[in-house]
Amino acid sequence: MKQILFVSIFLSLNILYAQVNLIKYVKPIIGTEKMGHTYPGATIPFGAVQLSPETDTISYEVNGKYNGEVYKYCAGYKYEDKTIVGFSHTHLSGTGHSDLGDFLIMPTQGKLQLNPGIASDSKSGYRSAYAHSNETAEAGYYKVKLDDDNILAEMTTSTRVGMHQYTFPKSDESHIILDLMAGIYNYDDKNVWTYVRVVNDTLITGYRQTMGWSRTRTVYFAMSFSNPFINYGQRNYDVKQAYRGFWGKFDQTNNFPEIAGKNIRMFFDFKTEEAEKIKIKFALSSVSQGNALENMQTEIKDWDFEKVKTEAQNSWNAELNKIKIDASEAVKTNFYTALYHTYINPTVYTDVNGEYKGLDQEVHVANGFTNYSTFSLWDTYRALHPLFNIIQPSRNNDMLKSMMAHYKESALHMLPIWSHYANDNWCMSGYHSVSVIADAIIKGNYNGDANEALDACVITAEQRNYEGIGTYMELGFIPAEKSGISVSNTLEYAYDDWCIAQLANKLNRKDVYAEFMKRSNNWQNNFNSATGFMQPKLANGTFKPNFDPLSTNGQGFIEGNSWNYSFFVPQDPKELVAKMGGSKNFTSRLDTLFSMNLPDSFFAETEDITREGIIGGYVHGNEPAHHVAYLYNWTNEAWKTQFQVRKILNMQYKPTPDGLGGNDDCGQMSAWYIFSSLGFYPVAPGSAAYALGSPIVNNAVLKLENGNTFTIEVINQKEKNVYVQQVVLNDKPLPTLFINHSDITNGSKLIFYMGPKPKK
Amino acid sequence: MKQILFVSIFLSLNILYAQVNLIKYVKPIIGTEKMGHTYPGATIPFGAVQLSPETDTISYEVNGKYNGEVYKYCAGYKYEDKTIVGFSHTHLSGTGHSDLGDFLIMPTQGKLQLNPGIASDSKSGYRSAYAHSNETAEAGYYKVKLDDDNILAEMTTSTRVGMHQYTFPKSDESHIILDLMAGIYNYDDKNVWTYVRVVNDTLITGYRQTMGWSRTRTVYFAMSFSNPFINYGQRNYDVKQAYRGFWGKFDQTNNFPEIAGKNIRMFFDFKTEEAEKIKIKFALSSVSQGNALENMQTEIKDWDFEKVKTEAQNSWNAELNKIKIDASEAVKTNFYTALYHTYINPTVYTDVNGEYKGLDQEVHVANGFTNYSTFSLWDTYRALHPLFNIIQPSRNNDMLKSMMAHYKESALHMLPIWSHYANDNWCMSGYHSVSVIADAIIKGNYNGDANEALDACVITAEQRNYEGIGTYMELGFIPAEKSGISVSNTLEYAYDDWCIAQLANKLNRKDVYAEFMKRSNNWQNNFNSATGFMQPKLANGTFKPNFDPLSTNGQGFIEGNSWNYSFFVPQDPKELVAKMGGSKNFTSRLDTLFSMNLPDSFFAETEDITREGIIGGYVHGNEPAHHVAYLYNWTNEAWKTQFQVRKILNMQYKPTPDGLGGNDDCGQMSAWYIFSSLGFYPVAPGSAAYALGSPIVNNAVLKLENGNTFTIEVINQKEKNVYVQQVVLNDKPLPTLFINHSDITNGSKLIFYMGPKPKK
Repeated sequence: MKQILFVSIFLSLNILYAQVNLIKYVKPIIGTEKMGHTYPGATIPFGAVQLSPETDTISYEVNGKYNGEVYKYCAGYKYEDKTIVGFSHTHLSGTGHSDLGDFLIMPTQGKLQLNPGIASDSKSGYRSAYAHSNETAEAGYYKVKLDDDNILAEMTTSTRVGMHQYTFPKSDESHIILDLMAGIYNYDDKNVWTYVRVVNDTLITGYRQTMGWSRTRTVYFAMSFSNPFINYGQRNYDVKQAYRGFWGKFDQTNNFPEIAGKNIRMFFDFKTEEAEKIKIKFALSSVSQGNALENMQTEIKDWDFEKVKTEAQNSWNAELNKIKIDASEAVKTNFYTALYHTYINPTVYTDVNGEYKGLDQEVHVANGFTNYSTFSLWDTYRALHPLFNIIQPSRNNDMLKSMMAHYKESALHMLPIWSHYANDNWCMSGYHSVSVIADAIIKGNYNGDANEALDACVITAEQRNYEGIGTYMELGFIPAEKSGISVSNTLEYAYDDWCIAQLANKLNRKDVYAEFMKRSNNWQNNFNSATGFMQPKLANGTFKPNFDPLSTNGQGFIEGNSWNYSFFVPQDPKELVAKMGGSKNFTSRLDTLFSMNLPDSFFAETEDITREGIIGGYVHGNEPAHHVAYLYNWTNEAWKTQFQVRKILNMQYKPTPDGLGGNDDCGQMSAWYIFSSLGFYPVAPGSAAYALGSPIVNNAVLKLENGNTFTIEVINQKEKNVYVQQVVLNDKPLPTLFINHSDITNGSKLIFYMGPKPKK
Repeated sequence: MKQILFVSIFLSLNILYAQVNLIKYVKPIIGTEKMGHTYPGATIPFGAVQLSPETDTISYEVNGKYNGEVYKYCAGYKYEDKTIVGFSHTHLSGTGHSDLGDFLIMPTQGKLQLNPGIASDSKSGYRSAYAHSNETAEAGYYKVKLDDDNILAEMTTSTRVGMHQYTFPKSDESHIILDLMAGIYNYDDKNVWTYVRVVNDTLITGYRQTMGWSRTRTVYFAMSFSNPFINYGQRNYDVKQAYRGFWGKFDQTNNFPEIAGKNIRMFFDFKTEEAEKIKIKFALSSVSQGNALENMQTEIKDWDFEKVKTEAQNSWNAELNKIKIDASEAVKTNFYTALYHTYINPTVYTDVNGEYKGLDQEVHVANGFTNYSTFSLWDTYRALHPLFNIIQPSRNNDMLKSMMAHYKESALHMLPIWSHYANDNWCMSGYHSVSVIADAIIKGNYNGDANEALDACVITAEQRNYEGIGTYMELGFIPAEKSGISVSNTLEYAYDDWCIAQLANKLNRKDVYAEFMKRSNNWQNNFNSATGFMQPKLANGTFKPNFDPLSTNGQGFIEGNSWNYSFFVPQDPKELVAKMGGSKNFTSRLDTLFSMNLPDSFFAETEDITREGIIGGYVHGNEPAHHVAYLYNWTNEAWKTQFQVRKILNMQYKPTPDGLGGNDDCGQMSAWYIFSSLGFYPVAPGSAAYALGSPIVNNAVLKLENGNTFTIEVINQKEKNVYVQQVVLNDKPLPTLFINHSDITNGSKLIFYMGPKPKK
């Protein structure tokens, strides 16, 4: 007994002492300028609440025109902007499409202004000027001084509750604005309905219903003030209003507790002493006001802001400590900020009582798992979910269960494409759920019914009405006449089909394996051996004329051109190399990709990236080529992978607000960084193999959930030593430039020996 | 044992044999023409579903103008109209304000038309011409031949499920239209959101969310077809549409199972043989699609239309048999149709599992009671709920519990004013919940916490922000400057306050009793002894100049003028008689009311009634004077009550489509008929006394829930014998023209001896 106790204490202490402060390397401000589309505000790992400042949304008009752009404000905040409109509770991280921005709160004092005002004149409304010098963005904590009204704004969160702390000056006219009209992607009648009840002078509950990227979406809330308000009211901006009670029996604009409409702003009035703090707890739920309140009461029981902040930051630190690296300060900042960004999506979608609203718009209970939402699968199947299979296997297991729940609740009987808050917006091509599912099950990270999951994959892949699948099943490709992205679709379906086959193989489902292995070769139908490019094909079987491999417009590709997409056969690089004329020709083609000069027209027509997101013709700012730098490993010139990967690590990720060359895409860009900086990458999720590259860390220790430790050591690590001379796994030289997932989970030690010259 | 068994069988047989066919006297078509605002379709007693034809709503435009009037189509159907648009599942009965008309279904064949078309050209859309000669409206059953497409439509319901049966001709193009745009009061962006999922080829579920008279209202549904449809689709008529999926991946208009938007029409295609029947079960819920489905599966298990119809009609017959009368055929038709109309509202609002959506828009469980909605209390406190205290005491008990649930869920902490589907539209004056509560508790019909109910009454009556209550509490009246209906308000508040006092007295709450007895005298503050009229008073205490006792416009009254409202002191007729100058003057004034000639201007400015709803200046078509004919009982000329009551019974109720002289108002007009035809009336609910009038039946037997029987016998009943010569209660001559509630519940026998001359 004594001995066991001792060991137990020792282990606890060991874990405790082992944790080092890593959140200091997290700079949420990275990616908030230009293309990154990240947000600087507070959240906790995979948190349901993302409490972050809005510098603008498209919620107001100037001279009849919207003031901003949908695309620009995907995350609500642009580092370039000079004013803050307020702080809202839901944000997408790194996407290229907008939504959310629910429940915008802004503290003001002086004359009440219910209009947000315009960016060029912050005094024109409730918004405020601010300076980056007065702004602090940390993991789990955000602080900014609001200059116009001399108010300090601070925020932190638990999983489902945002906590605000506003330090006011002395004022008889202090206000908290709750703008229920505000939102991101706030046009086309986005606001469907809003309902609020003022329960008492510190508690408000209600919901907000929107049709945005998520078409049928309702978010319930409970909002609690630390101090009672002395007065409150609302303004309803609906052009057409519902019947409002019999002959105006109530003045519904002031101190009237039942509020409903489409476009509503509320205010709560206080008298404040100098430096008086007003705190707000703001809880969300997809199910009900009652659940939101229960979430609040369970997660944040009192008004100790510092305690909540500490808990938030401790939760970040615990997650970050799963990978400890030794590296330069700049690399550490890039690395831990990237790791932070990989821990944001998907987001927790169950209430503390296990309930959530399903895709059928009905309330369900997640039995034995946490239901997650925000699946940007076209992006995240590539490296984010594979990363989770190493350092978040339990969460990834629950994410699979969430995808299966989505499948069961879907009237279409499909696994998610881009799943969000009880909706699928079907964004991007492919059916990459199957990749995430196959990868996790093959790597042993699913405790559900694997055969049921395979069935779901097959049924999804046979949804003939979905984006050309029917034609694809008949012809083996999608005719260019039928789709503007016919080649992307065929290539991605073929890869996904291979994933299904791999899963079927593991489950010994031979008929499924045979069928989907056959489908996985369909990429060859778009491969033109005469040009060596993937090309759109017409229904008559000939290639579409006027082919331009550089163009991203009308050539059959999505977020990419043929130059990048022609390498998209992650399931069979060996065959692709052969089809492209063997190792030499293939290498030469890759070299060209990484070195070509792109014409200006390319940037004019290509979305989501800037010149910074490009190396030669290789587009790192979009995802389709993320595996391409690793393809040299299938040639005789694997050292070029090492060169290109190190180049990308250095060029595409910088510890500055504009440090991301493209959308972070819910963590996929960041997951690429984590893998590549550690020296390996999952070229084809669904396979247990990782291709080796060129690590940028000096060493790394990965603490696995199974208790094992995977250690990476880099000998002779220097800026110029980008080339791998030798790799030793558990004291044995590696015969190839690949390792296996089991090498990691078994708790291996991997040593890279680096040098300034290629090992040819 | 044997003996008890025998008695038990005997009683059962007795009850069984005692039931006679009374539904043959129910003519739901009564009141569908002109002002009655009843609907002819199918429902069961207090049913949640009212499945009835719409002859028009205001859902379409002709030349930029709406085709109809909100007021005219309160119940969706006008006998005068020549076309039927379809059959929807929710209808108000007899109201003067519109809402509902949810889920309109129409069978058609031939070329698909998704537009309803216009009334003057039924071929212009899916609507159809019909003839009353091909129409049958019974309690629980409605049938009509749709001439345009040669389809027979039949419908019946259970409590929460409507059942349709459509008999088609042979056609390869038979359709069922589900118009989710259609609705009553269908303007001002009423349609907030619609969501539908096609679960399989016979089952549809979803919900429809509206802002109408009920501001925040969602009705969930489950719709099941007897035959699988072979094709289906939708059209979305939204001007602005939500993001509709990534580059139109699906054709969402045909065979696409996830449908959402604001203005949607759906169609389901069939091939039909000659005389083939397509049946539909359509279940409603305020909570969820799942609950709607559970309601359906619990209430209607198979596809036997005749069985459901029989059960519906049996349930009607059982309720109608609670009062058996002997009378002329015309009186029987009027009587049982009136009784039918009293059994329609309030409506069941709980699902079969006990859940309902509360006023806080959250899901609640009604523990130990059925939650009811549709409380038109300004109307129904007068006679409908008092009638329930005699023949529906259990249901009235549950209605009180529903009102208490409303109170507890209300952010305003108020009992309902006009409560409907988790909303209060605060229609009409007063806070008459307190009358219903006091009356029921005083009559022994409440098994809840009576003191809690009294507290709710007091808190409601002290809601200073509500319609002048604050001023009323300070000044004892509401200044005319503050309200256009100041006198109605004061008079009705004073009566309601008396009800609270009576309840307090019963509960021995002496302070409440004293306070509210004092408030109950406030009617005197609007009584001008110089004119003998109730008159609006200015804040300075003087009566408002330019007083016109005939006008209903701007004189301080709602749905009435001073001539009628000056008699509104039901709580203290004795004092009113005194204040008006004693019995002779008072009688003379009543005589004038019943005999005056009204100027045309009166009809031009007065809503809800026609010349048919008037006797002299007495307005029976609106409620405020419903007790007035009985006031002669407080004078020396009580025989005039008998004369006037009989006159009203004969003039205001006829067994024809236009047989009601005013809105039936959720059964209040009908409840007046039931009481008065039986010879007594509750002049002041909250008192256990009933004033006697002049029965129109020959005899009547009321079967009470406590097992007792209350019998009325009318000796010398003839058309001319309207005058009561003597009344004998349980073999003893009655000394007054009043009986007590306990006389009824104790199982008495009341004998009226009638004659052609007044007994002076």
